Amino acid sequence: MGKAAKEAAFQLSTATTAQKNRALTIIADELEANRDAILAANAQDIEQGRQSGLSEALLDRLLLNTERLAGIASDVRNVVGLQDPVGQEMDRRILENGMSLSRRRVPLGVVGVIYEARPNVTIDIAVLCLKTGNASILRGGKETFNSNMALVKVIQLSLEKAGLPAASVQYIENPDRALVSELLKLDQYVDMIIPRGGAGLHKMCQENSTIPVIIGGFGISHMFIDASADLNRSLDVIENAKVQRPSACNALDTLLVHQQVAAEFLPQLVQRLSDKVTFVADASALAGLTGAASLRAAQDGDFDTEWLSYTLGVKVVENIEQAIQHMRAHHASHSDAILTNRLDHAEQFINAVDSAAVYVNASTRFTDGAQFGLGAEVAVSTQKLHARGPMGLEELTSYKWVGRADYLSRS
Amino acid sequence: MGKAAKEAAFQLSTATTAQKNRALTIIADELEANRDAILAANAQDIEQGRQSGLSEALLDRLLLNTERLAGIASDVRNVVGLQDPVGQEMDRRILENGMSLSRRRVPLGVVGVIYEARPNVTIDIAVLCLKTGNASILRGGKETFNSNMALVKVIQLSLEKAGLPAASVQYIENPDRALVSELLKLDQYVDMIIPRGGAGLHKMCQENSTIPVIIGGFGISHMFIDASADLNRSLDVIENAKVQRPSACNALDTLLVHQQVAAEFLPQLVQRLSDKVTFVADASALAGLTGAASLRAAQDGDFDTEWLSYTLGVKVVENIEQAIQHMRAHHASHSDAILTNRLDHAEQFINAVDSAAVYVNASTRFTDGAQFGLGAEVAVSTQKLHARGPMGLEELTSYKWVGRADYLSRS
Repeated sequence: MGKAAKEAAFQLSTATTAQKNRALTIIADELEANRDAILAANAQDIEQGRQSGLSEALLDRLLLNTERLAGIASDVRNVVGLQDPVGQEMDRRILENGMSLSRRRVPLGVVGVIYEARPNVTIDIAVLCLKTGNASILRGGKETFNSNMALVKVIQLSLEKAGLPAASVQYIENPDRALVSELLKLDQYVDMIIPRGGAGLHKMCQENSTIPVIIGGFGISHMFIDASADLNRSLDVIENAKVQRPSACNALDTLLVHQQVAAEFLPQLVQRLSDKVTFVADASALAGLTGAASLRAAQDGDFDTEWLSYTLGVKVVENIEQAIQHMRAHHASHSDAILTNRLDHAEQFINAVDSAAVYVNASTRFTDGAQFGLGAEVAVSTQKLHARGPMGLEELTSYKWVGRADYLSRS
Repeated sequence: MGKAAKEAAFQLSTATTAQKNRALTIIADELEANRDAILAANAQDIEQGRQSGLSEALLDRLLLNTERLAGIASDVRNVVGLQDPVGQEMDRRILENGMSLSRRRVPLGVVGVIYEARPNVTIDIAVLCLKTGNASILRGGKETFNSNMALVKVIQLSLEKAGLPAASVQYIENPDRALVSELLKLDQYVDMIIPRGGAGLHKMCQENSTIPVIIGGFGISHMFIDASADLNRSLDVIENAKVQRPSACNALDTLLVHQQVAAEFLPQLVQRLSDKVTFVADASALAGLTGAASLRAAQDGDFDTEWLSYTLGVKVVENIEQAIQHMRAHHASHSDAILTNRLDHAEQFINAVDSAAVYVNASTRFTDGAQFGLGAEVAVSTQKLHARGPMGLEELTSYKWVGRADYLSRS
C-alpha cells in the first residue's frame, strides 16, 4: 500500500489543477449516482451499532441519509472552487551571483489519516488530499466500516474515470490494530500522519510514529474577564463559548474572573447560565456562585480537565498576571480569550498566552477553518511545527527550492 | 532542565528584539574577553583527542584558535544585524463578522539540539535560538566536551549580564547516552529536536522521539546531463559539485548522462576529473570512461551510497524520464540538478524531482543558508513538514492566530 501510494503521489504531483478538479467533480457526481449503495452500507453500520449498544447520539453522528449525502457532495464541489496552492512560487529573488531562486509549493506526498466515527471524514480528507496532489491512506473507525468501504469504492471508481490512479486514495480494510502500528512506521513511503480522534489516539501516534504527526485537538480553553471588561456583553460571549456546542474542542473550559469585578459579575453569570451549566468553582469563586442550581467545589485536576460538556470551571484571580500564570500551569494551548477594554492588557495577553489561537473580546468557538476563511479544514493542530490551529489546503503542502542559472558553479 | 527551559522560553518569548540583540552583543564580547579560558579548554579536548587516536583532519575540525574564535564572535555580531522574525504579523484580514484576524510569528519555545564534533555549533545554535526567542537544550559530542562547557559558561554569564535567564541555554553535561533518550521524550517541555550529525543519529531520533524532529542531511545528489546541455560549461559545474568539498551533503554523488552525448562527453569528463576522482560506472558508462585512472564497475548499492568523498557514480540513461526514474529509485531528496538548454526539460525536471532543492544549470553545492541569503543556517531539512532545505531564523518560529473583535459571539 505504501509503495502504491507513493507511486500514485508521484503522478498526482504532476497532475494539473484542471485534472484534479475534474476528478473531484466526478466524485461529487458519483456520490449522488451511487446513493442507494452508500446508504445501504451505512444502514448496515447503523444496525450493527444499534445491536452493539451505541448511544442514539453517536448513531446519529454515524448516520447518512439523502440530505446528508447531498451535503457531502456539495462540500466536494466547494473544494473544486478553492484555489489550488500547488505550484505557487514564493519569495522569488535574483541572488548576487545571478541565480533566480524561489520556493515552489508542492504536495507533501502521502498522508496517512487515522480517524474515528463520522463517515464524512472519509470524503473530506480524501478530497482535500486530492486537491493538493497528495495520495492518502485512510483508516476509519470500525463503527463505519461498511460506509467507508462504499465511499472509498466510489472515490476509486471516480479516480479511474478521471484518468488518475485509483491508489491515490487507499483504505486499510483489515481491522487488525497492528496494521495501524505498521502504518506509523512506513516513513519510507508516508510523509505525514494526521490522527483525528481523542487524546489517546494522538498519544499513541506521537509515541509510536517514525513519521511526522500532526498533534491536535486537546487543550483547556480559558477566558479571562478583566476588571475593565464590559460585563454585560461578556455574558453573551461566555454563553456562546460554553453552550453553543460543548463537545467541541474550542468550547470554553475555564473562566477566570478579575477579583475587582467578581462580586458583581458572578451572580450575573449564575443568572445567565445556571439553567444549563454546572459550575465547578475554585475556593475563590464559591461565594459568588452560591445561587447556582448545580455547583461543586473544584478538586485536584478539575482545572486540567477538558470538559466537553456543560461543565464550567470558575476561578477568581488577582490580576492579569495571575490569569496568565494559571493558564500556563493548566494546558492552555488551543483557544483562549481575554475580555477587556484595556489595550495594554489585550497586548499583554496576546503576547504571553502560548496557544494556537488567542482572542480579544471574542468567543473561543471561532477557531475553525471555515470561520477563518480557509475554505476547508483538515485538522486543528496544537503543536508548533508545520502548522498551528486550523489547517487548510496550504497546510497539506510543502515547498521545494528552485534555482535557475546559466551553468553556475561556485568559485 | 526541561522545566527550567520552558520557564526561560516564556521570558524570552516576551523579550524585545533590542534585549535579545543586547544579549548577543555581550556574548560576542565575552567570547573574546574569555579567550584564554576557552582556548585552554579546547586544548584539553585536542590533547585528549590526540591520545585517543583521532585523525589530524578531525582534530583540525575541533580546533579553536584566536582567529577562529574571533570568526565565531564576528558571526554572532552578524546575527545581531539580521531581522528578528518574531512578532511579524501575516495574512491580516477583516472577516465578514468584523473580526480582525492575523497570524503572528512566535518562537517555537524550547529547541533540543544533538550534535557532533565542531564546537562552533554550540555558539551557532544557541545564538540563533536566542535571536528567535527560543530556549535551547544542547548536547554536543564528547570530543569537544571541555570546549562546549567553556562556551556555554560564557553564554550563561552573558545572559545574566543582559538580564535574561541563564537557563535560556542549557547543556547536558552528563555523558550518559541514556540522557539523550530522555531528552527525546520530554514532549511536555521541548517543542522541536534538531539532530546535527550522521544518518545514524537522525534515525535514532526519528525512531525514539515523541517530539517533532527535523530530519536532514542524507540524500543522494544527482546531476543529469541532457542531450541539449552545453557540454563544455557542464564540466565546470560538475567539477564544482564533485570536487569543491566532497564531504558536504550537497556534493554530487551520481552523474546521469544522456545517451546521445555520452560518447562525446564521458572522455571529456575523464580528462577533466581523472586526476582527482574515482569513477564507479554503471555497465552503460564503462566504455566511455575507460581512460580513467581510477575506475570500477558499479555494484549493488553503489547508486544508493552518499559518497562524501572523491568517488562519483556515472550512468548513461536513454532520456530524461529514465533519469528521473533512476533518481526516484535512488534516494534523491536533498539537492539535484539538470544541465540542459531545453526549457521543457528544465520544467519537467523541476516538477518531477521531489528534492529539497532542484537546480537548472547550477551546482548542487548551492544548497546552503548563506548562499540562499537566509543569513544563518540552523540545519538542512530533507523532510517535508515545517521546513525543507536550508533552515534560517524564520524556520525557528511558529505562529499563533490572533483574533480581535468587539465582544463577538457566534450566532
